[in-house]
Amino acid sequence: MHALYLKPKEHRRLLGGHLWVFSNELKEVPRDIAAGETVQLFTNDGRLLGTGFFNPHSLIAFRLLTRDETQPDREFFRNKIREALKLREKIYPESETNAWRLVHGESDGLPGLVIDRFDKAFVLQSFSAGMENHLPIITEVLRELFDPKAIVLRNESPLRELEGLPLYKEMLLGDENDAWQVINDDGISYRVNILEGQKTGFFLDQRENRRHIRKYAADADVLDVYTNDGGFALNAMHAGARSTTMVDISQDALQRAEQNARMNGLEKFSIVADDAFATLGRLRQENRSYDLVILDPPSFTKSRKTVPTALKAYTKLNRLGLQLVKNEGFLATASCSHHVSEEDFLAAVQLGALHAGKHLRLISRNAQPPDHPILLSMPETSYLKFACFYVTNL
Amino acid sequence: MHALYLKPKEHRRLLGGHLWVFSNELKEVPRDIAAGETVQLFTNDGRLLGTGFFNPHSLIAFRLLTRDETQPDREFFRNKIREALKLREKIYPESETNAWRLVHGESDGLPGLVIDRFDKAFVLQSFSAGMENHLPIITEVLRELFDPKAIVLRNESPLRELEGLPLYKEMLLGDENDAWQVINDDGISYRVNILEGQKTGFFLDQRENRRHIRKYAADADVLDVYTNDGGFALNAMHAGARSTTMVDISQDALQRAEQNARMNGLEKFSIVADDAFATLGRLRQENRSYDLVILDPPSFTKSRKTVPTALKAYTKLNRLGLQLVKNEGFLATASCSHHVSEEDFLAAVQLGALHAGKHLRLISRNAQPPDHPILLSMPETSYLKFACFYVTNL
Repeated sequence: MHALYLKPKEHRRLLGGHLWVFSNELKEVPRDIAAGETVQLFTNDGRLLGTGFFNPHSLIAFRLLTRDETQPDREFFRNKIREALKLREKIYPESETNAWRLVHGESDGLPGLVIDRFDKAFVLQSFSAGMENHLPIITEVLRELFDPKAIVLRNESPLRELEGLPLYKEMLLGDENDAWQVINDDGISYRVNILEGQKTGFFLDQRENRRHIRKYAADADVLDVYTNDGGFALNAMHAGARSTTMVDISQDALQRAEQNARMNGLEKFSIVADDAFATLGRLRQENRSYDLVILDPPSFTKSRKTVPTALKAYTKLNRLGLQLVKNEGFLATASCSHHVSEEDFLAAVQLGALHAGKHLRLISRNAQPPDHPILLSMPETSYLKFACFYVTNL
Repeated sequence: MHALYLKPKEHRRLLGGHLWVFSNELKEVPRDIAAGETVQLFTNDGRLLGTGFFNPHSLIAFRLLTRDETQPDREFFRNKIREALKLREKIYPESETNAWRLVHGESDGLPGLVIDRFDKAFVLQSFSAGMENHLPIITEVLRELFDPKAIVLRNESPLRELEGLPLYKEMLLGDENDAWQVINDDGISYRVNILEGQKTGFFLDQRENRRHIRKYAADADVLDVYTNDGGFALNAMHAGARSTTMVDISQDALQRAEQNARMNGLEKFSIVADDAFATLGRLRQENRSYDLVILDPPSFTKSRKTVPTALKAYTKLNRLGLQLVKNEGFLATASCSHHVSEEDFLAAVQLGALHAGKHLRLISRNAQPPDHPILLSMPETSYLKFACFYVTNL
């Protein structure tokens, strides 16, 4: 195996539990090692730190797999996936849900790998050259552990370009009929297209938050902005909402949302196919108001540079949303922007409340669900912010 | 009404939503105004900021009640309590729980006042001279809104001494038989003594967290450290724990815990009456291990000065607790220390894990429940930290 050496002191973050080495932290970036090769990492003075994947083309030059000489063979992947599985099995009884993230990359000790389970189908994403090379043994392990009906590679993330990897999708197991999966989550069913849906087909990361808003939804008029597959609105209807309004700019998304509602026998909804900001402004002009407003926008920034712009957008979005909340109503608001901290996000919402002339009591905060675990030693593994407020007029 | 004037610029925090003025922020601290008097607050250049309670003896010289000239009369208190009640009624259906914090001080716009509801009994705490003066109309409002069977003042907090207030408790309504209340929370009953129990009689603030650990408790061997009334252990047994061990240094607490368990028909428990740290060390020596360890210690620091000592204690406690968690088990760990931030608390736990040779995946975080709301503009209203981890061996 090839060996990499760190510059002096650059091993500290790894000893604290981090799993990445940036290229400028290496003593030298060897040009004779292929992207994706498994290598050993040493401190500047020659102590072994572990084994992992190297990529000379990536800013993340090395991703740690093990803290010894263990090779990423079939047994390694089987052990890691079993360990990840055990957490999901304990948290999610099959009677409650049949869809969860089985592997959340670094957080489950498998840097650059995501595996989502939708009933008997598995969707994979790989984000590093090393993981890409190992997809054959990973799918073998999945066949061995789960006897799946379908396995799909959704390797379309632009992040792959940073690793010099091509963008593609591929059905490794199953046929066209398997593209549609029906998943159940706590009493609600969703149709998921694992070949065509966004990312891996469905946003599993808001599962707990979608369930959470049921508390505020009984007899409520609910506005669900950026509804996508309708997740929040479906849960609101399930909990006895008087009405729900689902807003999304995508006709496709609204069609899925509507189909999901019908499949669940839920009918108290209307749909608005338009831009979120424009819709919120229009509803304000029409003097509409709601007992519960839900704001679940896509990421407002892909880089650290544009965080200030993103925060302004959060302030504006939450101001517009809060203006529509009735006195003694609720706001549920989310941010999935990796680069925006919880503190900054909450401050942006608070500023929006000042602008809207509303008083906020923070009544719950949440992050990613347990199938998207966080490593405290690796802030990069944390991204989802979710907060609920009791809203009164100033 | 007397008028107070701030020094230049000292109004900014209040405009951002904070409710306190410290004595050094006042232009002068008038000596002719009695502690507890209702006064008006102005900026340095004479703009009205609002009306509130003054106390010349307290570091917190002024607590804001309203942002105009409204007097804290019966109608004011009725409106504030009704607003607070509406939140609790929406969040907690009577079928689910009959005990919650009705008023959480500043967070509910009533600085220095706490009201806990235990079925038909109400327990009050006042922490400011101004609120103390208004207890008669507050209890009148409670009688009007709730027709309670018992009202108790538990004015025993040492914080009152900072306001120059005496420490006492008093039963304003009801007789000795009303001291014991039975409350129900999500399928579990607790006996609460509102005259003798800690603080207001029962720790309502861990309600959601006690329920939360049910997820990890099925078929588990559970260790509940600082069990107090047995809350976490009861929930673990309710969820099907194989065994629970309740640890507390107080024989009284363990007696309550045991009575609560028997009352609920829960029997899979043993008790250890000893110091938490000593017990954890001993269990380690005995090679005991658990699927779920719960650590819910009392506050480790009452002041900002001793935060470093508190953080060391959290690291040690969590190290000792983590050493007892089986591979692929769970840790649920809390901090109620006001002065310890969530970030610092989580870092202390992480350090404990490094010392214990354990790998942590953070799978959920929580703070206070919705009946203890937080004002983002007033960090002092936030105090409870709670985190759950999936624990594997390094």
